[in-house]
Amino acid sequence: MITRLSTLFLRTLRDDPAEADVASHKLLLRAGYIRRAAPGIYTWLPLGLKVLRKIEAIVREEMDAINGQEVHFPALLPAEPYRRTNRWVEYGPNLFRLKDRRDNDYLLAPTHEEMFTLLVKDHFSSYKDLPAIVYQIQTKYRDEARPRAGLIRGREFVMKDSYSFDVDDAGLEAAYAKHRDAYERVFTRLGLDYVICQAMSGAMGGSASEEFLFPTPIGEDTFVRSPGGYTANAEAVTTPTPADLDFSTTPEPSQVLTPDAKTIATLVAALEEAAPREAGWKAADTLKHVVLTATEPTGDKRLVVIGLPGDRDVDLKRVEAALAPAEIETATPEDLEDYPELVPGFIGTRHIGPQGRRAEDGSSLITYLMDARVPRGSAWVTGGDETNYHTINAVFGRDFEVDGRIEAAEIRAGDPAPDGSGPLELARGIEIGHIFQLGRKYAESLGLTVLDENGVARVVTMGSYGIGVSRILAALAEEYHDEQGLTWPIQVAPAHVHIVVAGRGEDSEQAAEQLAETLTAHDVEVILDDRPKVRAGVKFTDAELLGAPIIVVVGRSLADGVLEVRTRASGEREDVPVGEAAATIVERVRAGLAGEGA
Amino acid sequence: MITRLSTLFLRTLRDDPAEADVASHKLLLRAGYIRRAAPGIYTWLPLGLKVLRKIEAIVREEMDAINGQEVHFPALLPAEPYRRTNRWVEYGPNLFRLKDRRDNDYLLAPTHEEMFTLLVKDHFSSYKDLPAIVYQIQTKYRDEARPRAGLIRGREFVMKDSYSFDVDDAGLEAAYAKHRDAYERVFTRLGLDYVICQAMSGAMGGSASEEFLFPTPIGEDTFVRSPGGYTANAEAVTTPTPADLDFSTTPEPSQVLTPDAKTIATLVAALEEAAPREAGWKAADTLKHVVLTATEPTGDKRLVVIGLPGDRDVDLKRVEAALAPAEIETATPEDLEDYPELVPGFIGTRHIGPQGRRAEDGSSLITYLMDARVPRGSAWVTGGDETNYHTINAVFGRDFEVDGRIEAAEIRAGDPAPDGSGPLELARGIEIGHIFQLGRKYAESLGLTVLDENGVARVVTMGSYGIGVSRILAALAEEYHDEQGLTWPIQVAPAHVHIVVAGRGEDSEQAAEQLAETLTAHDVEVILDDRPKVRAGVKFTDAELLGAPIIVVVGRSLADGVLEVRTRASGEREDVPVGEAAATIVERVRAGLAGEGA
Repeated sequence: MITRLSTLFLRTLRDDPAEADVASHKLLLRAGYIRRAAPGIYTWLPLGLKVLRKIEAIVREEMDAINGQEVHFPALLPAEPYRRTNRWVEYGPNLFRLKDRRDNDYLLAPTHEEMFTLLVKDHFSSYKDLPAIVYQIQTKYRDEARPRAGLIRGREFVMKDSYSFDVDDAGLEAAYAKHRDAYERVFTRLGLDYVICQAMSGAMGGSASEEFLFPTPIGEDTFVRSPGGYTANAEAVTTPTPADLDFSTTPEPSQVLTPDAKTIATLVAALEEAAPREAGWKAADTLKHVVLTATEPTGDKRLVVIGLPGDRDVDLKRVEAALAPAEIETATPEDLEDYPELVPGFIGTRHIGPQGRRAEDGSSLITYLMDARVPRGSAWVTGGDETNYHTINAVFGRDFEVDGRIEAAEIRAGDPAPDGSGPLELARGIEIGHIFQLGRKYAESLGLTVLDENGVARVVTMGSYGIGVSRILAALAEEYHDEQGLTWPIQVAPAHVHIVVAGRGEDSEQAAEQLAETLTAHDVEVILDDRPKVRAGVKFTDAELLGAPIIVVVGRSLADGVLEVRTRASGEREDVPVGEAAATIVERVRAGLAGEGA
Repeated sequence: MITRLSTLFLRTLRDDPAEADVASHKLLLRAGYIRRAAPGIYTWLPLGLKVLRKIEAIVREEMDAINGQEVHFPALLPAEPYRRTNRWVEYGPNLFRLKDRRDNDYLLAPTHEEMFTLLVKDHFSSYKDLPAIVYQIQTKYRDEARPRAGLIRGREFVMKDSYSFDVDDAGLEAAYAKHRDAYERVFTRLGLDYVICQAMSGAMGGSASEEFLFPTPIGEDTFVRSPGGYTANAEAVTTPTPADLDFSTTPEPSQVLTPDAKTIATLVAALEEAAPREAGWKAADTLKHVVLTATEPTGDKRLVVIGLPGDRDVDLKRVEAALAPAEIETATPEDLEDYPELVPGFIGTRHIGPQGRRAEDGSSLITYLMDARVPRGSAWVTGGDETNYHTINAVFGRDFEVDGRIEAAEIRAGDPAPDGSGPLELARGIEIGHIFQLGRKYAESLGLTVLDENGVARVVTMGSYGIGVSRILAALAEEYHDEQGLTWPIQVAPAHVHIVVAGRGEDSEQAAEQLAETLTAHDVEVILDDRPKVRAGVKFTDAELLGAPIIVVVGRSLADGVLEVRTRASGEREDVPVGEAAATIVERVRAGLAGEGA
């Protein structure tokens, strides 16, 4: 069917909407693909829906190709299964919760691990029924604190989520590998750039886990790569803890007067004066204490002090990943009101962690976590626990202890890759897929077992695999656009060809109409700009904004028997005789679709 | 792609699940098409999803054919637009309401009139942009008090809803007619029986309105039809009010002792004794007063007394339709506690409606509504307002007044059609579609106007049109099944052909596999029962339960070079030479699809 601009439900915008920050968001709004309904919640307009369906179809084909079975779960779910796995609580404020008219608890599902597990439990009882891969392409909900960038971080979004069920670890690894391959095919077919990164599993539990990131400066995730091929989400980069140091020659700790030295820079200067030494003092000689708050999904909030070298900064996202599902924030003066022992600017080791007060359950009232790169036995300049004083020669493991280790410091370009494959470089990206080996957590919580060949009940091992379908649409718009508008790859474009009736008079209209009909008859999808009384310039602008890969201009040159065929992405223009136009375009569309993602 | 039962995510059940009451629900559960997730909320399993998608595709094609523009709205919506039309309140407990993390009100949309109106307002400003038809196929939510019969009355369900926008009434009527025709084509193509009935518009507002009902004894709606072609939902049947009667010769009312006459039958007997007359007494001479409660969506509850002839019963659904959006229930003794003037069993006219107490705003404290069929001037036996007494010769309009008229009495077979087209017969049905002329209600509330050719702003007039997509699937299962299972029409079946490998040995397997591949290559959709170690009897039972229209048995007769081709619905069996089987089946499938709905 021809999509006619004279009747299409479309209104393009000349100016960038105020609500939009990134290019894809601006263009998808301006070109009439989506419309905002509420923060992080969008309406799909006709052209956006067409692109979304094409992305879905590619994802579906590749899932079917690994023998995935498509189902469709409700979005509105009872709380009970999520209570059994504790995610009802762990999701915290990210979960949309509601009650029905009988006061029963419901949620809008952010993912469906519980429901898939229960469905398989309901269906299968023998190892012979496995392996199984079950998936859905479905609308999901997450009450993001900061929805942003249009479809990139929304509160209602479309995801493909699949789950694998196996009787043993080898089976899980095979299902994981199948998904990894399928995802590579999906992104390649879509023409979307991607990097596979080691990942944290977040609130989901589980072990091995990789993310597919679309590299882009507007990405929210930072990832690293090394010359030797190591790639990881910055959250997941591990720092090998160095061997213990010998502190036998380190003097006892002592207090040094460091007036007003509340920053690392002023501290280094003060030390040069108060305790000069041959090697001098550098930021890396100081142990910084950063006070954070960790809020559990239950609402419980506690202080966490991070110890790390003074030349490093804390990466809150890495800390949050390490302490999931707690939310992590920098402590405010109000948070510190009940802790007079913490002297602002001079926090040392005497009142934190095992050295400090105890909570009722015997644990440290103030949790003290040491960055992974700090070796036991190392000596530090740290806060003196009294105003204007610092302590020197404070030895970790001799003079103080901690409650645990953490990956807290930001990764810097040039840091060594943990696998020894060379110095890291940093880049930003958007998570477009995530695969991981969940293991037996959900199956155990929900009692999913099968009988093995000896009749013994075995807990099933699961994998969980997501693709952000609506987010991919935004990522594609981010990768494929220019100053004038969108430049879709042909396999996801809302139409293959956009015909502009630029000339006046019936001849142009008839020629365009006839070309559109011929192309449609050959399965070429056509947008026909048949709007009467709209200037050719406006039509060209809209054609470039909408972004179909081939633009055909039926204009003045029609009198000479030629049409102009433009390639949207490259801007190339070519005159083609009217009689050959249909065949040329059909050929070009077929070649484009055949070489999809190439 | 071949759907192989050896790997399909399917478990059929031999017995009817306890949760299911009607045939379609039992079979859809037993055949593994759907699974219950919560009351009125279902998971689509692979075969169910395939049927649903085919129904959606037919609906989509017919909507596109009337130039409908497909969009897709969020299910999660902000409350604000629904507040402006007052539906936030009017929907009462049927609406799923929730709050986001910032304490803003949201809802799960039951229909999208507001959002479509605002979208069109955002897009269009001139009469030249109209007419427009915009639609979506989308998941909707309604917190039904009594979800029942599986997909027939669910709380999460799939609907096609469309909306027409026109500048004048003639345009609205044309859009309405287009939809009516499109719906007829949809149901005809689906092969689903339907009746078009005059309808009430319920909580939606608006004027002209028709329902498409699927006639079935398990339906919740009652509809009527006359020999002359009048069809209407019982809720919408109007009773012409007869002309006023002359009461000049009617004696003054008087009290009659009628001990213990609390029912119409005992009352008639008591009257024969206490006030004998030549014509005798019948139930139709008495005016019954039925006390109901009407609960507004705000929670406000008031008493409503219905007056109607003693030989009729109140139809609560008709009363509820007339008093929408209030919920109507029979009054309980507790409801009557504050009304000692209402003497149980002997309620007359002295203390109700205009004769009774006043509310603060001056209106009747107890609303008194008279059934439409009761003429002014008619004389009645009615309650005496004191225990054991009735009043005779109480004349409506002389001795008492009412607050209004209502369609309250049940329709009976044999009642005259309101258009004079003969006596009515009654039947039951399920609403599968609803079309109606909304008019300007939503456009006015939300400020949707366009400039007409004279530059004058005109309020747009709208139509609203729904099809219950998931409900249709259940209706089809209700129409197409037998004792053994489902008997899908080919155009919606989850597969065209179900091949059973009944014979043992590699020959059978290979022959079945080859046939499946040949059919698939010709676009015939195949379920292949290739399960090893499953008895042929079980396979036949499953094939009949699943309900593909053509069943092919590859069994013992393979040795003689023939396959058995069964027609699922009729049970016909035919032996076909192996070499001709593929061609025969392809031909039969094509003929079936070409004659869809025939």
